[in-house]
Amino acid sequence: MRVLIRDVPANVGSTVTVSGWIHRIRELGAVSFVLVRDRTGIVQVVYEGGVEFTLESVVTIFGDVVENPKAPGGFEVKATHTDVLAPAVADLPIAVNQDPDAVGIDAILDNRIVSLRNPKIRSIFTVQSTILRLFAEFLRSEQFTEIKTSKLIGTGTEGGTGLFSVQYFDDTVYLAQSPQFYKQTMVASGLERVFEIGAAYRAEKHDTPRHLNEYVSLDVEMAFIENENDLMDLECRLLQHIVAGVNTEHHDILESWGIEPVDPEAIERIPRISHDDAKEIVSTALGRRVFELNPESERVLSDWARTEHGIDAVFVHGFPRKKRPFYTYPDGLKTRSFDLIFRGLEITTGGQRIHEYAMLRDTLPKFGLTENGLADYMQIFRYGCPPHGGFAIGLERLTQKLLGLQNVKEASLFPRDRRRTRP
Amino acid sequence: MRVLIRDVPANVGSTVTVSGWIHRIRELGAVSFVLVRDRTGIVQVVYEGGVEFTLESVVTIFGDVVENPKAPGGFEVKATHTDVLAPAVADLPIAVNQDPDAVGIDAILDNRIVSLRNPKIRSIFTVQSTILRLFAEFLRSEQFTEIKTSKLIGTGTEGGTGLFSVQYFDDTVYLAQSPQFYKQTMVASGLERVFEIGAAYRAEKHDTPRHLNEYVSLDVEMAFIENENDLMDLECRLLQHIVAGVNTEHHDILESWGIEPVDPEAIERIPRISHDDAKEIVSTALGRRVFELNPESERVLSDWARTEHGIDAVFVHGFPRKKRPFYTYPDGLKTRSFDLIFRGLEITTGGQRIHEYAMLRDTLPKFGLTENGLADYMQIFRYGCPPHGGFAIGLERLTQKLLGLQNVKEASLFPRDRRRTRP
Repeated sequence: MRVLIRDVPANVGSTVTVSGWIHRIRELGAVSFVLVRDRTGIVQVVYEGGVEFTLESVVTIFGDVVENPKAPGGFEVKATHTDVLAPAVADLPIAVNQDPDAVGIDAILDNRIVSLRNPKIRSIFTVQSTILRLFAEFLRSEQFTEIKTSKLIGTGTEGGTGLFSVQYFDDTVYLAQSPQFYKQTMVASGLERVFEIGAAYRAEKHDTPRHLNEYVSLDVEMAFIENENDLMDLECRLLQHIVAGVNTEHHDILESWGIEPVDPEAIERIPRISHDDAKEIVSTALGRRVFELNPESERVLSDWARTEHGIDAVFVHGFPRKKRPFYTYPDGLKTRSFDLIFRGLEITTGGQRIHEYAMLRDTLPKFGLTENGLADYMQIFRYGCPPHGGFAIGLERLTQKLLGLQNVKEASLFPRDRRRTRP
Repeated sequence: MRVLIRDVPANVGSTVTVSGWIHRIRELGAVSFVLVRDRTGIVQVVYEGGVEFTLESVVTIFGDVVENPKAPGGFEVKATHTDVLAPAVADLPIAVNQDPDAVGIDAILDNRIVSLRNPKIRSIFTVQSTILRLFAEFLRSEQFTEIKTSKLIGTGTEGGTGLFSVQYFDDTVYLAQSPQFYKQTMVASGLERVFEIGAAYRAEKHDTPRHLNEYVSLDVEMAFIENENDLMDLECRLLQHIVAGVNTEHHDILESWGIEPVDPEAIERIPRISHDDAKEIVSTALGRRVFELNPESERVLSDWARTEHGIDAVFVHGFPRKKRPFYTYPDGLKTRSFDLIFRGLEITTGGQRIHEYAMLRDTLPKFGLTENGLADYMQIFRYGCPPHGGFAIGLERLTQKLLGLQNVKEASLFPRDRRRTRP
């Protein structure tokens, strides 16, 4: 019966069976020290003489657990017998047992199948799995229903640009940029509160550390709101739940990445500033007039919020109409919309949506759209839709920022960018 | 402050605010009875005289809660004031407040945006949301990690047929048929146990009540198994958890669909029969020799299992090599693979995978494949991969069968088939 490595210390004085990967080999002639890795940890195994297996081979080891203050964790296994379940070829393209900080992002991604074996790299996805759980857990506790909607659509949510086309039998369809229309359908259907965890696609040509062409969108939509403040309130409570959970469950991983945990209490202090005020703050900080918020501005605003409010996050609301999609609820020349900038990066876009049929119909021409072209979408509003809004968090960006990663691609198991379609 | 409809009875004698959709209107001259629907239920609202709103309009009603044994649920709201938040146009393409059994599947799907408002139709997706939660909940309790992998791949998992192609900048890529290679990568990475909830695509031309061209695949993969029995054991425990949860939380929905709940205890009795024995059983039942298991056979096998074992589900294992993908672990001319047939429909395909590099290399030519063509995949095994296997459950098929729906498309919010790419 296999004993997991984290349970080895509880078996001191006993004979155990341990299975895992050969993580490190140190042959000293009379004795060899071998580190073995499984999903729960790493243990030292001691062999008399040399060993005949290679790094990364998968083994099952039978041996006796003894205390040894010099061994990692204070315990080791004295091997009596070893079965090699799967030998590894000795030409690893990158080292698995070294700090990945010494390896460039391209080497890590080009050799993804091997680099994901590195415990520190893999730990990113342990945290990501927890984020997925905490996101759903919080929303379910607030009576949200999880939905799964099609990613193959006739036209884009935000117009026809930036779409990947799919040959669908004799038709051409597109990969969805967001589940926006479907979220709204389900709000109007009477579910009122829905969330979706699903892939989103952007055919954007730029290849930057901020962008992925395929990412996981954590989408939320809620009916019977007053305005966008209800959504920011909801997102704060959601982020508190996520941050508190990650801090508690993955303290060791945060530490290994050298990142300070976010204080869940501080999330209540995230300032909410208008788009106009944000431009003022950035202009003042940079000593020159800015007319748009760009990546540099996002970093400046985060720094400002950390100094002024003790948390490097800021909600920017009141974006001008022409900067937001047609379905955004207007407020004069502005909109009831917001972004959340966290640690220098926009991780959320959200807002109240237009729910009145007549208002939507009058809005379409201003965006070069027609009622005919959006016939299915218009049905949502033709038959009574409550006031509503929502937001979406990029899973990889949130993961990146919680762990302090340099590049969002590090937070995607198999990232897709301009050049990268494999593995 | 809005009161949810399920909480109306607790407010008898008080004035409440209720928000929702106009579900039914009965005008009797001196008085009108109106049913109002929100995400938690339906309540009767009484108006003096006639009413001026239409079916499906979204309203906020202020009124007094009184007991009335004749009202649905024993309570009603005497309206004092009503705000129409969003009026509905009075040309509903299909009735929202009638039993959907009277409406054909095409009318339901062609008018999906309206038909999803029907409480009975919507209840399918309430159950589906719970299945998603229970699936993840069980696997997490067994130390599985949730992963999200790319759906844009260079080549198909099971060869190049049945793939939708995507124009990806200057390249052509394909929509993934399954996350098979990525699940195996993550098992070999050291996570050992992974699951993924994600879209899967099959460019199959047939348009049947069993098929979707886009579906949600509930994927599981696990290391350090002995053989395929470990996987069937795991799936039984998983299904027990799902079924027990659905029975407890959605007893009323199961009843409204007229379907008998599955007994979680009976899942332990699901028989495991070989592919050869399955053909024998079907041949005997039909009085003629069958050489393949087809949809008719699946119904026969379910009936047989119900008669013999008290549950209409059966695992069929030991499929011939030529009927399974190249990566299936061989067992002579057979394989360590299985299907689960539930209520006459295959809802799972699974099996142990080849983990030995040399065995896999020798297998490729038999399937017309080359090591070069699968260079990324071969890396998983080149560097040591534990014995492992997994399975996938079709979310829509499982939902369909738990509720006794006639057509799998009913269990997809926005189904994609040969003809259907909208809404």
